[in-house]
Amino acid sequence: MDVWLRASLADLPEGDHHAAATVRDRAAVILRPFGALARLDELAVWVAAWQRTDQPAVERPAALIFAADHGVAAAKVSAYPADVTSAMLGAYRSGRSTISAFAAVAGATVQAVDVGVGRPTADIRFEPAMDTARFDAAAAAGREAVEGLDADLLVLGEMGIGNTTAAAAVAAALGGGEVAAWVGRGTGIDDEALARKQVAVRQAVDRIAGVTDPLDVLREVGGAELVAMAAAVVAARQRNLPVLIDGYVVTAAAFSLFAANQRALEHCQVGHCSAEPGHRRLLERMNKSPLLDLDMRLGEGTGAMAAVPLVAMACAGITQVPTFAEWFG
Amino acid sequence: MDVWLRASLADLPEGDHHAAATVRDRAAVILRPFGALARLDELAVWVAAWQRTDQPAVERPAALIFAADHGVAAAKVSAYPADVTSAMLGAYRSGRSTISAFAAVAGATVQAVDVGVGRPTADIRFEPAMDTARFDAAAAAGREAVEGLDADLLVLGEMGIGNTTAAAAVAAALGGGEVAAWVGRGTGIDDEALARKQVAVRQAVDRIAGVTDPLDVLREVGGAELVAMAAAVVAARQRNLPVLIDGYVVTAAAFSLFAANQRALEHCQVGHCSAEPGHRRLLERMNKSPLLDLDMRLGEGTGAMAAVPLVAMACAGITQVPTFAEWFG
Repeated sequence: MDVWLRASLADLPEGDHHAAATVRDRAAVILRPFGALARLDELAVWVAAWQRTDQPAVERPAALIFAADHGVAAAKVSAYPADVTSAMLGAYRSGRSTISAFAAVAGATVQAVDVGVGRPTADIRFEPAMDTARFDAAAAAGREAVEGLDADLLVLGEMGIGNTTAAAAVAAALGGGEVAAWVGRGTGIDDEALARKQVAVRQAVDRIAGVTDPLDVLREVGGAELVAMAAAVVAARQRNLPVLIDGYVVTAAAFSLFAANQRALEHCQVGHCSAEPGHRRLLERMNKSPLLDLDMRLGEGTGAMAAVPLVAMACAGITQVPTFAEWFG
Repeated sequence: MDVWLRASLADLPEGDHHAAATVRDRAAVILRPFGALARLDELAVWVAAWQRTDQPAVERPAALIFAADHGVAAAKVSAYPADVTSAMLGAYRSGRSTISAFAAVAGATVQAVDVGVGRPTADIRFEPAMDTARFDAAAAAGREAVEGLDADLLVLGEMGIGNTTAAAAVAAALGGGEVAAWVGRGTGIDDEALARKQVAVRQAVDRIAGVTDPLDVLREVGGAELVAMAAAVVAARQRNLPVLIDGYVVTAAAFSLFAANQRALEHCQVGHCSAEPGHRRLLERMNKSPLLDLDMRLGEGTGAMAAVPLVAMACAGITQVPTFAEWFG
């Protein structure tokens, strides 16, 4: 299985402590009451650490939206038919989707990456979602998409009918506890579909009892876009690119990295907390505090994109504002 | 006392129910799962109602920052000397302040309005902050500033050393309960200064025992920038201009309007919840849910400005995205 991903997870670069310290020191003497920006100042310090510069800035934010289909959609776990994935991929590429509208406000680019639309992974209730070859191909797609970017902040998003079922299976398998607590209504399913979804997730988790390696779990019960996003997170770390994570599906993918190496998500912030109940549980496990909490549950990277201007403001609030000494001196 | 303000409060225009309904109906059939944007769709409906158009948009956001000095600063209730108000006014006007840096990200204009910098109101512990002539002048300044704007969303902010003391006095006098619960650390005062501030607010509130008219309370224990902001809120209502309220001081000013007429703030949303503990209490009284909750406590309109892109995205998420029928039809 993907040699690059495992090797990279075992050898994660650290952030630039010097740049971070420089920005933290400047934040303490800037022309406003000490500590008045709280979390936003911390955000600027975080950007400095992972962009590796004492001039942190968000001027070229870029969203990657990974899309794929899922065999488990056959379990009728979504409110939408599987061919909606393909239709939405078209909407992303035509710039007509919600993420495109949000990106226009944030000044961001959006690129949709097809890692399996119309080529569903296997039904995770009965067999591994993918073999190692497909895992490797999805990881390579995620890595290459990041390597092709000219960006200073990466927004990760996804689309795939059935993928909150895969996310719940990954979260339940790695997070433990009662399976049903990880299963939510996704796109808005009714009680009957929710019951089917809980059964499907339990079947998948039971099937892989004994599998403990987080990347194996991701291959067994995840999906191609989850693998691609996990690889994208790691590739961003290697390119000095801070990451904004979106909702439950992106976070479940990232959680597999965290389970493998608790340092793996230091360069990631969580844009928002989804209405999907498993999301808040995952964020607690990862000790991540979301920037926004607005009950959104769309995916497409919209919750992360909504937070991009906050990160941009946090940086500008340090670099574009004088210190007391500069102003009064 | 200000005839226009009282008359306007008694005759508030309603929102455009037709525009709101059109946007709400469109939100239900747009190319994403029903309800997936939750609060953001509600925001777009709200903008439609108060811009009076079924094409809500945030393209010309404008911030007004009202600044004034306060006689109660003599009670040593701030971490900063009173002449910082004047210095900050200069920073706003030079575009070098935090609000300017945030506004650049949000694509907003910033205008600072001096309603009493270097001309402190009287010390509210011992006498009315201002007479009716000064109240009327401050209200006129607020109204005129709004009438001079070319904007589609108004951000209200403030600056004034001592003004969280005035805000606490307004909130305590109108909100009731234990005075100390309305008093926070403002710019970051220590325990001793906090104790002085609590005493000062209690003195002010005790002095006006029996005064129940909200605008009289604002004149007695508020400040010139609070009066100007209250007038600005009402003027915005008359000009189809939705308003984003900032932190404790702006909200205390708005609360005086709410106390006079519970419909007065229908065209206002609250950008963020401040770290100042009285702010959350006021928002609960007003039944307003903040868009952001990031422990900011700067003022200058920064918490409201930080939420401007969210409102812009909410609107674009309706007007710039096709419906299912438009996309598949």
